[in-house]
Amino acid sequence: MPHAIDKDTQLCMSLAGRPGNTGTRFHNHLYEALGLNYAYKAFTTHDLPAAVGGIRALGIRGCAISMPFKEACIPLLDALDPSAAVIDSVNTIVNDQGRLTGYNTDFLAIAQLLDSHGVSPSLSFALRGSGGMAKAVAFALRQAGFRQGHIIARNPAAGQALAQASGFAWAAELGELRPALLINVTPIGMAGGPEAEDLAFPAEAIERAEIVFDVVALPAETPLIRHARALGKPVITGAEVATLQALEQFVLYTGRRPSPEQVARAAAYSRQS
Amino acid sequence: MPHAIDKDTQLCMSLAGRPGNTGTRFHNHLYEALGLNYAYKAFTTHDLPAAVGGIRALGIRGCAISMPFKEACIPLLDALDPSAAVIDSVNTIVNDQGRLTGYNTDFLAIAQLLDSHGVSPSLSFALRGSGGMAKAVAFALRQAGFRQGHIIARNPAAGQALAQASGFAWAAELGELRPALLINVTPIGMAGGPEAEDLAFPAEAIERAEIVFDVVALPAETPLIRHARALGKPVITGAEVATLQALEQFVLYTGRRPSPEQVARAAAYSRQS
Repeated sequence: MPHAIDKDTQLCMSLAGRPGNTGTRFHNHLYEALGLNYAYKAFTTHDLPAAVGGIRALGIRGCAISMPFKEACIPLLDALDPSAAVIDSVNTIVNDQGRLTGYNTDFLAIAQLLDSHGVSPSLSFALRGSGGMAKAVAFALRQAGFRQGHIIARNPAAGQALAQASGFAWAAELGELRPALLINVTPIGMAGGPEAEDLAFPAEAIERAEIVFDVVALPAETPLIRHARALGKPVITGAEVATLQALEQFVLYTGRRPSPEQVARAAAYSRQS
Repeated sequence: MPHAIDKDTQLCMSLAGRPGNTGTRFHNHLYEALGLNYAYKAFTTHDLPAAVGGIRALGIRGCAISMPFKEACIPLLDALDPSAAVIDSVNTIVNDQGRLTGYNTDFLAIAQLLDSHGVSPSLSFALRGSGGMAKAVAFALRQAGFRQGHIIARNPAAGQALAQASGFAWAAELGELRPALLINVTPIGMAGGPEAEDLAFPAEAIERAEIVFDVVALPAETPLIRHARALGKPVITGAEVATLQALEQFVLYTGRRPSPEQVARAAAYSRQS
């Protein structure tokens, strides 16, 4: 049973163009599991400066930031953690007595997953995508020591800009490239999207890869991930990114780190909605 | 069991210099009793404009306003209900799609109680006090048709100002006055205060009164109320004001009116904290 809300309850929240239930369920489940007097609520807004001002003025402990607010919130904060500064994108605000610091726990999660999965930075890679999450992945790769890689993006301006900023090469198509690490950071394979059934990379490239990373979280088992698993390839899923980034938010907000079993239960519960 | 917080949960809140648990418990108890997807949380702030801006920007449905924010919030709102306009004091903000209207449910509750207890406006009264709540009571008396009354206040400036604004007389002390209706709107009799054991009016005046009204809510059974009850006098207690004003907030926020039994249970629960 959740802790009854009282005057000492710490509120955490999210701001998103289209609020969902996943974060709310993940955080509230863990608050209850750990017996913490916290509550979590999703919000949207048409006035980001006033919303962030409200976070500060009301002493709301933390706030997840989703599209379309990840860059727009930056001028409203007091400080940026390196995880957010390096990619100019905030997905988490922590409020310490009115001082708001922006973090990017997607960046932190991706960096951790590359490490925990033992992905060698000597591998060549192809990263498909050029949006904000692609930037987080590209900079995490750079920080992890990767040097041989291509940003694959049909949009030349966005693709070249990201390639140049992260220090990698750009290509409009995978073509004859056969990198050891394939990373999808596009909506291909996303449930409900127009390309839900499509492979983000050609089957032949998947066969030649050593490891496959898909940032799409819903479903965790995208066509790309299923295909790679069927070939016995190690994979990193978007569900891992989503869970780990939410866990890092939880730790920032509460100062408590739940056990892996508690995290797994909260993640499973959060995906039931 | 409370409704699990999700993206559709409506948040209501309070702003007070020193947040308590009474409102939180009253509202959350009724949300649960009526199966409403609402949650209530108490806040304080050092930046009232930003806090009110946050209410608007985050779509927080309603907010109780306590000391010291009841007048300061007025310039931050879009409209005032007559209940707030008449006394220049807001204790409730209702947010309709970003449009903030200020109400004063203390005023509404006092007016309702004078009516529901059948207090005749032909009675003479003495109202002891000159603060914000005294203003709400004095104007409710005026609106109810009372014409013969004294504001009793040792502070001449505040007492005369209230008397003049509400159209009644002022006196520094009760003296030889023996009004039919005695009303205490001072902290005399309040639990934990320096005058917790004191009678707000002389015993002889209580004996001569027809009805006694004490705005002190904690405890509901102040020395004044106990004394009047012992003499068989009808009473109106501060607990009735507190419950009724909270109920009117609840109706404004949710559009639902709980049954008297549900209100009684919520009120009893709210006072357990």
